[in-house]
Amino acid sequence: MRGLQLPREAVDSERLVILEERRQRIDNDPRAQFDEQLGEALFPNHPYGTPVIGWFHEMEQLSWEDATGFYQRYYAPNNAYLVVSGDVSVEDVRALAEKTYGLIPKGDVPERARTISPPFIARTSVKMTHPVVKEPVFQREYRAPSARQNAKDSLALQVLEEIMDGGSTSRLYKSLVVEKKIASSVSLSYISFAWDDATLAVGGTAMDGFTPEQVEAAIDDELRLLITGGVREQELKEAILRLQAQAIYARDSVAGPAMVVGYTLVTGSSLDDLETWPQQIETVTAKQVQDVAAKYLNPDAPTSTPFVNGYLYPPQTKAEEKAP
Amino acid sequence: MRGLQLPREAVDSERLVILEERRQRIDNDPRAQFDEQLGEALFPNHPYGTPVIGWFHEMEQLSWEDATGFYQRYYAPNNAYLVVSGDVSVEDVRALAEKTYGLIPKGDVPERARTISPPFIARTSVKMTHPVVKEPVFQREYRAPSARQNAKDSLALQVLEEIMDGGSTSRLYKSLVVEKKIASSVSLSYISFAWDDATLAVGGTAMDGFTPEQVEAAIDDELRLLITGGVREQELKEAILRLQAQAIYARDSVAGPAMVVGYTLVTGSSLDDLETWPQQIETVTAKQVQDVAAKYLNPDAPTSTPFVNGYLYPPQTKAEEKAP
Repeated sequence: MRGLQLPREAVDSERLVILEERRQRIDNDPRAQFDEQLGEALFPNHPYGTPVIGWFHEMEQLSWEDATGFYQRYYAPNNAYLVVSGDVSVEDVRALAEKTYGLIPKGDVPERARTISPPFIARTSVKMTHPVVKEPVFQREYRAPSARQNAKDSLALQVLEEIMDGGSTSRLYKSLVVEKKIASSVSLSYISFAWDDATLAVGGTAMDGFTPEQVEAAIDDELRLLITGGVREQELKEAILRLQAQAIYARDSVAGPAMVVGYTLVTGSSLDDLETWPQQIETVTAKQVQDVAAKYLNPDAPTSTPFVNGYLYPPQTKAEEKAP
Repeated sequence: MRGLQLPREAVDSERLVILEERRQRIDNDPRAQFDEQLGEALFPNHPYGTPVIGWFHEMEQLSWEDATGFYQRYYAPNNAYLVVSGDVSVEDVRALAEKTYGLIPKGDVPERARTISPPFIARTSVKMTHPVVKEPVFQREYRAPSARQNAKDSLALQVLEEIMDGGSTSRLYKSLVVEKKIASSVSLSYISFAWDDATLAVGGTAMDGFTPEQVEAAIDDELRLLITGGVREQELKEAILRLQAQAIYARDSVAGPAMVVGYTLVTGSSLDDLETWPQQIETVTAKQVQDVAAKYLNPDAPTSTPFVNGYLYPPQTKAEEKAP
């Protein structure tokens, strides 16, 4: 926690490792590049616009001084959560933690201060063409409330996600993949863990002969249907049951629950929030799901929530040539 | 320079003045809002994406501590240029400067360190619809080299600007406004003063019945014509002559030359660069103008230079409804 001895050579070699990881995972993968550009456009003037792995041109300039400076400044017991998962007792862990981390003095950690994105008054779209892309992709990313920002709306968005994209009976899959055969895959994902705005992403890969714009239109139709028609009670109950079951399955590993505890605490929610989640998710009503859809995802009130539309094209499709 | 006594009330009242200025000049002017969103999209992860006047939500939180902290940190004689313009002699000014600023000790000013925008691998567009907009606007902004980054290309871009948008005989005006009657106004502007990338903007306001997309296509045609056909010797000579004449006219005021000297020095060029500019601009060849057009402004190699396309629509035009 405080006494790290970091050899200069370790920084040099680790930097090469990370750059290589970035090259493989992002820079050689057009879909990952595309997602990175979308994230950047969604969070201007905000650290969430910077990918977790960092920009290549910045990473390659990071020095031993940068690494140790960051370590000195931010690594302190009063700026960390210790999560222990496994065949242990609270008493044992607490005693051990007090004998180790407990002896380390508090660090003088600076307050969390960050820039805020300015209002989105225009609609931004990101279009990318890449020679190795085979099927065009449409992807829209919204800034949605995190659990910390709005616990109630966040719960309703979790149920909405499950109704729209909870496997082969979900609305998006049934409509776009099974019935309309416009998309080969489709997804809506919402991750509630964030200190500031969370991200809700919806999109799909177009079937041969279809454009990303057609996928977009079909997704918008499903969103309108949700907003105007709401959800059926049966649909709601099944979604909530599946979510609760997933939470139970997620406990069936050592690392999984530890990760969830960590995510929850570092993004400003409490252990109580986590422990009572199965009961809380059960209180979400059909009306609430419809309301959050109207509030955050209404395609006909497009500047109510910040979002970015992304279009990923294979080389030389008609749609791409026409695109501005 | 160093001894400012800033009353707390002065900060409170000045903050209100600046917020009101921002409200009037930006937030009540859709064109200014649009330009601000474009600039933000053009410079992700870079301070140039933040408007000079600041974001409203950040400005309103700035305190006396922020203002005096900035002042203490950055206001120092070794971090400033003194430009004196008027009926003075170098000897007099130097003697006075040494007796005043010269007595102030150096400040411990931090090094200029700033983030760099990551590569633009996607094409970003910004679309905005506003109820008080009457005529649709197309505006594209490129990141082009500044004089500091590439003096030679910067000179050629200055000549290019004059050929494309140097009054009623310029190419864009003649083509889009006079001949095709697509646009009521059109412009191409390039400002060479910047420490990092400079901005080159091209755009126009559509005539009644035309869309911003048609203005864009007509501008792209003119860019292609420049890239494939080059410029005539006569056109080049006249543009250079006009630029030289403008530089002479610009000296015909007290503040004008002082501003140019200030811009030149703070953006990393030298007084020599400024003094020899009339001779340097004369060396620009037709080939160089054609080359920088191909290098930075080729609409058929659209990701070679970072740029953002902007479309500003009046309410409920057909083009806007169709737009993704």
